[in-house]
Amino acid sequence: MSVHTVAVVGLGPMGRALASAFSEGGIRTTVWNRTQARADALVERGAVRAETVLDAVRAAELVVVCLRDDQAVAAVLEPAADALRGRTLVNFTSTAPHQSRTRGEWAARHGIGYLDGAILTPTPTIGGPGALILYSGPEPVYQAHRAVLATLGGRAEYVGEDVGRAAGYDAAVLSLFWLSILGVVHSLAMARAEGISGADLAPFAASITGLLPEMLDRFARQVEADDYPGGISTIASASAGLAHLTESARRLGFDTAIFRASLDIVERAVDSGFGADGLARLTDIVARPTAESVR
Amino acid sequence: MSVHTVAVVGLGPMGRALASAFSEGGIRTTVWNRTQARADALVERGAVRAETVLDAVRAAELVVVCLRDDQAVAAVLEPAADALRGRTLVNFTSTAPHQSRTRGEWAARHGIGYLDGAILTPTPTIGGPGALILYSGPEPVYQAHRAVLATLGGRAEYVGEDVGRAAGYDAAVLSLFWLSILGVVHSLAMARAEGISGADLAPFAASITGLLPEMLDRFARQVEADDYPGGISTIASASAGLAHLTESARRLGFDTAIFRASLDIVERAVDSGFGADGLARLTDIVARPTAESVR
Repeated sequence: MSVHTVAVVGLGPMGRALASAFSEGGIRTTVWNRTQARADALVERGAVRAETVLDAVRAAELVVVCLRDDQAVAAVLEPAADALRGRTLVNFTSTAPHQSRTRGEWAARHGIGYLDGAILTPTPTIGGPGALILYSGPEPVYQAHRAVLATLGGRAEYVGEDVGRAAGYDAAVLSLFWLSILGVVHSLAMARAEGISGADLAPFAASITGLLPEMLDRFARQVEADDYPGGISTIASASAGLAHLTESARRLGFDTAIFRASLDIVERAVDSGFGADGLARLTDIVARPTAESVR
Repeated sequence: MSVHTVAVVGLGPMGRALASAFSEGGIRTTVWNRTQARADALVERGAVRAETVLDAVRAAELVVVCLRDDQAVAAVLEPAADALRGRTLVNFTSTAPHQSRTRGEWAARHGIGYLDGAILTPTPTIGGPGALILYSGPEPVYQAHRAVLATLGGRAEYVGEDVGRAAGYDAAVLSLFWLSILGVVHSLAMARAEGISGADLAPFAASITGLLPEMLDRFARQVEADDYPGGISTIASASAGLAHLTESARRLGFDTAIFRASLDIVERAVDSGFGADGLARLTDIVARPTAESVR
């Protein structure tokens, strides 16, 4: 059996994109999904339909799984553990780092080669130059399958032996993605509520988005050095603006939970004696649970 | 009395920066602060100390106020309303748009020319090329004082007759600022908790910050058109990642309130039937109050 034989288990939008990229890359690709019709278009274009998960696993040396969550992975793959022994499993299911590590331990106990994959770019990038995929797990396993995984396109990065590391990068990048997107969303919503068009707002908003790359590098250096000089924008001086913003949002009838959570972070920083520090000091505050957040 | 006579009321860091820029710009500048010592350095460099607010107001045609909040403006300036009559007041105090409008109505009732100013850049930019200041209120008032206000440096923009409009821009831009900054903060904190250095994270995080300018323009156009095509990233497909992220943050012992607030926004969008729409549709969701946010 050659490394050019791949099975894709789970054919949601991302699973279908992965299977399609392997198949179009000239790799014999077996596919399985609980709802079999999801495989139809792939089979028409040359993929092989497996009737059962066991059939899919036995047809390939490299098994790629992309399911809804780790519970689905457990339900689908744990009964196939014996068939997976001696094969390699690459798990693209979105999971938290601790779940990836636990899944890696399960694989090791069953003699399954295991890599955890984190896909940082949207589905349509797969197979093309825009894809960015991170892998973590045993390096020899990655090196053995690197060529076939390259079929998925774009940039592939091996980020380390710690199985949870790819998911760790994913969580860190997703944090930035979601909060920035919600920043854009709130900015446009608030402008609209004040009768300001997106076109009118854009040049001023761009003065913020333009700052972020430099700010990210500067904050990263401050975190590394554990030194947070106040400089031009201290936590205390910035907090008044955030309080006004929260009040403005409330007055407009907005859902203010995200602003109240933000203000709580800033106020806890001030209460902890960090008011004269720069904003990068907030990294210490968000990493602490609150009584409410532990619920 | 010439337009080149300015009074600055309120000498916190921003008030001192404003007074210093006027004074160094060759404008006769009278200063007042409740704690008089705050004026000492300015007086040494040529500003004139006023013993009372009334003295300050009477010494200048243009009165600039920069206090902690609108309550402080009321306490300091309302007793001086008669002295302000016939003069122009430029209010740089950070206020919500509705507060600016109410203050503008108060000024109009007392025959005071009124402009609301929003300073979008940090204190050290004042007087230099980096300053960005917005003004709203009656255009003739702005035009009459535009030259002297240009002493504050950088870029000055008159954004309209609605007195609250400068504060509206400020709130919209601040929303983007705060949530993006908290995105950077959470990203670095989460990476650190997973043993990933800022330097290792930076190139992947940059793939997000690099997307924002285009995304802002695209979202703005979608909001204008009230049309939110799902395209490559629907609300429903993105929501699973946010749920994982929230769980990862909880497992790391982070304060998760900001992620729970984010997830709540996304889940309400899905519940409202917007799961197949693009993320810009979230602008409609955040502009609605929740039972909890109204408290």
